Amino acid sequence: MNMRLTQAPIDTLCANALRFLAIDAVEAAQSGHPGMPMGMAEIAVALWTRHLRHNPADPAWPDRDRFVLSNGHGSMLLYALLHLSGYGLPIEELKRFRQLDSRTPGHPEVGHTPGVETTTGPLGQGITNAVGMALAEKLLAAEFNRPGHAIVDHRTWVFLGDGCLMEGISHEAASFAGVQRLSKLICLWDDNRISIDGSVEGWFADDTPARFRAYGWNVIEAVDGHDVEAVDRALREAIANADNDIGPTLVCCRTTIGQGSPARAGTADIHGAPLGADEIAATRAALGWTHTPFDVPAEIRSAFDARATGAQRQAGWQQRFDAYAEAFPEPAAEFRRRMAGELPSAFGVLSHAILRGVNSEAATVATRKASQQAIGRLARALPELLGGSADLTHSNLTDWPGCGAVRADAAGRHINWGVREFGMAAALNGIALHGGFIPFGATFLVFSDYARNAIRMSALMKQRVVYVMTHDSIGLGEDGPTHQPVEHIPSLRLIPGLDVWRPCDAVETQAAWNAAVTRRDGPTLLALSRQNLPHQTRDEAQLQAIARGGYVLADAPRPALVVIATGSEVALAMSLRMQLHERGIAARVVSMPCTAAFDRQSADYRAAVLPPDVPRLVIEAAQPDSWWRYLAGVRGDVVGIARFGESAPAAALLARFGFTPQTVLDRALALLAHA
Amino acid sequence: MNMRLTQAPIDTLCANALRFLAIDAVEAAQSGHPGMPMGMAEIAVALWTRHLRHNPADPAWPDRDRFVLSNGHGSMLLYALLHLSGYGLPIEELKRFRQLDSRTPGHPEVGHTPGVETTTGPLGQGITNAVGMALAEKLLAAEFNRPGHAIVDHRTWVFLGDGCLMEGISHEAASFAGVQRLSKLICLWDDNRISIDGSVEGWFADDTPARFRAYGWNVIEAVDGHDVEAVDRALREAIANADNDIGPTLVCCRTTIGQGSPARAGTADIHGAPLGADEIAATRAALGWTHTPFDVPAEIRSAFDARATGAQRQAGWQQRFDAYAEAFPEPAAEFRRRMAGELPSAFGVLSHAILRGVNSEAATVATRKASQQAIGRLARALPELLGGSADLTHSNLTDWPGCGAVRADAAGRHINWGVREFGMAAALNGIALHGGFIPFGATFLVFSDYARNAIRMSALMKQRVVYVMTHDSIGLGEDGPTHQPVEHIPSLRLIPGLDVWRPCDAVETQAAWNAAVTRRDGPTLLALSRQNLPHQTRDEAQLQAIARGGYVLADAPRPALVVIATGSEVALAMSLRMQLHERGIAARVVSMPCTAAFDRQSADYRAAVLPPDVPRLVIEAAQPDSWWRYLAGVRGDVVGIARFGESAPAAALLARFGFTPQTVLDRALALLAHA
Repeated sequence: MNMRLTQAPIDTLCANALRFLAIDAVEAAQSGHPGMPMGMAEIAVALWTRHLRHNPADPAWPDRDRFVLSNGHGSMLLYALLHLSGYGLPIEELKRFRQLDSRTPGHPEVGHTPGVETTTGPLGQGITNAVGMALAEKLLAAEFNRPGHAIVDHRTWVFLGDGCLMEGISHEAASFAGVQRLSKLICLWDDNRISIDGSVEGWFADDTPARFRAYGWNVIEAVDGHDVEAVDRALREAIANADNDIGPTLVCCRTTIGQGSPARAGTADIHGAPLGADEIAATRAALGWTHTPFDVPAEIRSAFDARATGAQRQAGWQQRFDAYAEAFPEPAAEFRRRMAGELPSAFGVLSHAILRGVNSEAATVATRKASQQAIGRLARALPELLGGSADLTHSNLTDWPGCGAVRADAAGRHINWGVREFGMAAALNGIALHGGFIPFGATFLVFSDYARNAIRMSALMKQRVVYVMTHDSIGLGEDGPTHQPVEHIPSLRLIPGLDVWRPCDAVETQAAWNAAVTRRDGPTLLALSRQNLPHQTRDEAQLQAIARGGYVLADAPRPALVVIATGSEVALAMSLRMQLHERGIAARVVSMPCTAAFDRQSADYRAAVLPPDVPRLVIEAAQPDSWWRYLAGVRGDVVGIARFGESAPAAALLARFGFTPQTVLDRALALLAHA
Repeated sequence: MNMRLTQAPIDTLCANALRFLAIDAVEAAQSGHPGMPMGMAEIAVALWTRHLRHNPADPAWPDRDRFVLSNGHGSMLLYALLHLSGYGLPIEELKRFRQLDSRTPGHPEVGHTPGVETTTGPLGQGITNAVGMALAEKLLAAEFNRPGHAIVDHRTWVFLGDGCLMEGISHEAASFAGVQRLSKLICLWDDNRISIDGSVEGWFADDTPARFRAYGWNVIEAVDGHDVEAVDRALREAIANADNDIGPTLVCCRTTIGQGSPARAGTADIHGAPLGADEIAATRAALGWTHTPFDVPAEIRSAFDARATGAQRQAGWQQRFDAYAEAFPEPAAEFRRRMAGELPSAFGVLSHAILRGVNSEAATVATRKASQQAIGRLARALPELLGGSADLTHSNLTDWPGCGAVRADAAGRHINWGVREFGMAAALNGIALHGGFIPFGATFLVFSDYARNAIRMSALMKQRVVYVMTHDSIGLGEDGPTHQPVEHIPSLRLIPGLDVWRPCDAVETQAAWNAAVTRRDGPTLLALSRQNLPHQTRDEAQLQAIARGGYVLADAPRPALVVIATGSEVALAMSLRMQLHERGIAARVVSMPCTAAFDRQSADYRAAVLPPDVPRLVIEAAQPDSWWRYLAGVRGDVVGIARFGESAPAAALLARFGFTPQTVLDRALALLAHA
């Protein structure tokens, strides 16, 4: 095949333009993944030039369609589409693909490149983000739309490959999307039968259409992914499914990876490496592409340019929204606020009043119970609070009076995620990215492991997601070492940008929740106790200081020892202080519910809390190693747990692992003896 | 229904005996999960009294059937079965369910209770362990069996519930078992339509039979799980499937959770809480069970007692094995060695000779490449080495000459796991637990997150599993922050019992592999570079010292500074030493590839490597916090990365993040200036 440019239909030209932007950018970088963009080029043309509703001039338009590149290694396809559609992504940025500080990093990064809706690359999470987006759309539509006023009415589109489908999280995502009947979710599967190791038949033989039908999806099979018209027909059918609300749709597109490369199409070799000059020349010849690298003819640019239709669409929506705002001014204002991610104007005052109220209650409760009460209080003030549990609702304590269950046909505010920790976390990211909600999700802290990379992605994407992780230590008792976190609290603290809170009582729990919903630049994880924890007394200054992450809970003049503790061990630290007092030793207790927040305080504040020359003893029922950072330059010790837990009643375990008044007293006295 | 004991058929009596042992043990502990044992009692009777091939007197019999309780919260069912079958688990231990140091912890723990094959509780991992076990059986059979001599011929049975089926890992496990055609894997699904949050219809509506058929499984539907004869018929059919090698089988058993409890059967209330005295009395009355707690009539004990048939079966196998040993003495000896988990007798000498050879090659290679070479060398000496990659074979570099691919119809030694990190890790645990192999698996280090809880389970179960984790820092370059580990190395070090090795060159990589295969009491994780790392010169004593985890790589008389580094940063530490030398400052370089191994050394050795009064500078391209433990009591600093990476060529990133000779020199001089 060696046809002249003018002879090829415009769709073919458009597809080849995408191919060569990818080929040439990868070649310039000598790094990247050309195979997927070359294979999905026609699919991209069909969706982006015929169906995707967006406005390149305003990537934040609330009612835009969401597009998720779940196979994020094919980033150059997305960059090419954004560039050609008219987003603020000039060709110079494509030339700087994968270079320092370019807008075209190796994998798409939300907040970094206009038009990128989510950061993808870790396989399976993109489609799960999309499930969260589609759920957010459905719930917002149910909440805000009024008869004749559909201000929320958009679709969520996903490109995904075999890699996403092999990942376990794709099961959680698709099963959840099915049972929730997320009809506006439309996924396009790049069925090229190649993964990195080669032809997938030796390791991936699922009947994927049958699998998705088993989840309650509509499946459109055997679409020729290199025929724009065929893909277009499938997309029309998928849209009809969406309009008829009969469940999500999977479009199965048969493609050839690296389509167009004479020597490498259909092989794993083209997945993740530059083609090289010779094969690029051969591909240019085969496809009749005569343009120099990064040169795209005006005819093709015009076919992709979505600026006019996008502006028109958004203007139409704006008109509808204005009519809505006239008819329903309060919900309209609320919708604006919610989509802007702003808290109600009086929230700061209110949240502190709530905190004072909790303080005056002086309750002794498990912090998981205190969290449930905090959720209930905040849910009244924040209709955007939306969350639930991965099938541990009555253990994590995530529901609240009147919350209502989110179901396929019911728009409540509490989500039964099922036993799907990773899917839950990645969907929370999608909900947060969509906007309109502050999402939270819950499981046992030990199973944060299952969700860990999605928690990392919350932090990388700086999303306001709240993780409610209960049963936070051996203090959970009989369930034993499989269920007892040991390394989890310190290891989660290592994730950059994640605020880990381990409150010691109901007051700190409320403060942690207040901080979590107030924080706009990242996620928060709450580590909460199964067992009851006593109320600690605080004055107003101490109440205010909780938000600093670490503060003096009980002081003594000229302390000989500073005892730092978190969560369930704060009460033990307080008892240690009394024991030392009886021996004539003055000790200060520092409660440190959030090291990340404490680290953000001024050096002066930190030195005031942790005076430089006073020995320090840390008590935390978790792996102790990371605490030594807070002991640099002073004499110190850490009472922690450096091995796995055991199955027994909590009191027996705490005694065995050394979390008793006598043991910590011995450790404190030994420390002071050597000081 | 209130029938006399003598009127009920023995199967009913047996099932009720299981029910009441569970009910009464949970009641005694005031903790535990009675619902599943009550619901699966008849299924357990059908399997354990009619089909399971095992010998309670020898839980280590190599050719026993493996039984996996994937829904591990139903542990009392397993303890009751083990006790009644005749394992060394006296009734006193059942009375001490969930108590300190009992043999009956909250969830089953392998190595702790005779007859428990794997530690379960974290949902979805049990079935995946079972996939590994079934794969091990199949591969051992292919390797060792001879015509007329089937010394490896057993089945793997799994109980699992809705929770396991909702977990993403069940997709990875079932898809892999299907494509590998693991026909001797038979799973019994406790289809009770209840999970912890209640009736599953609101969050779990999969057509599970259709889903498993899509994976290539045989599915036996609509079995009455409370009819022992019906379950028995299904098991016979499943066994026929196994015998005909037509793929794994899922038996779908319709059950009622908490069957027998008049007030709570069929509700989530009975899942995880004691019934209480009144409901226990009502259940006793309803089922006509007149025995006191923990009293099981002899008739029932006799029906369960598997000691005679077990001894007979094992004796038959021993006869067959003896005949095999006579005909094929070498493979027989090898089989014994492999199943005992022992290395070849000369391995210690050989492995050190290999290490010397690598040292004399003095190659500059990426440690991922050095790992591939190490695998190749060890694979020649250790036929039990079995491993592969989660679809990154040519990035992780896990294959070796002549390894052969493991396929449904081919028994090679290299496994293409597909993009299934979590499934791979949990299956590795199953392979190790089965015995006969030293399994390893690979992915990018950042995606250790996906597998994290299974890595934790390797450590908790003390299994010899090797994790090959490549692309271990920002040094991987262009793929960007989604692919660049930052917190992973330190956070993996926090898992008790996991040895994390980060070798600095080919020599340390070989030493790490030698340590990994030699270690018998736990897993090893190798963090390996994408980029080339220079060879470091060592004398024989240093070669030997690598195994200690930390050692002096380059010394100076009376050092003013000790520079500690790992992996790719060791070369930087060496260059820093030269720079300091030029300034008249003596510095020692300590290479610390494995902190866990170093921590196991004597205090004298550690003090000799890290002299107490010399300032220390740590250099590692990872989150730095945990290193402060090694700086306690001395002046020190850590050069690390406390934020996410970026997408750019590696050299540009290393410069930006401060891993250049100039930056580390500045940090060293600043440290010394204040010392």
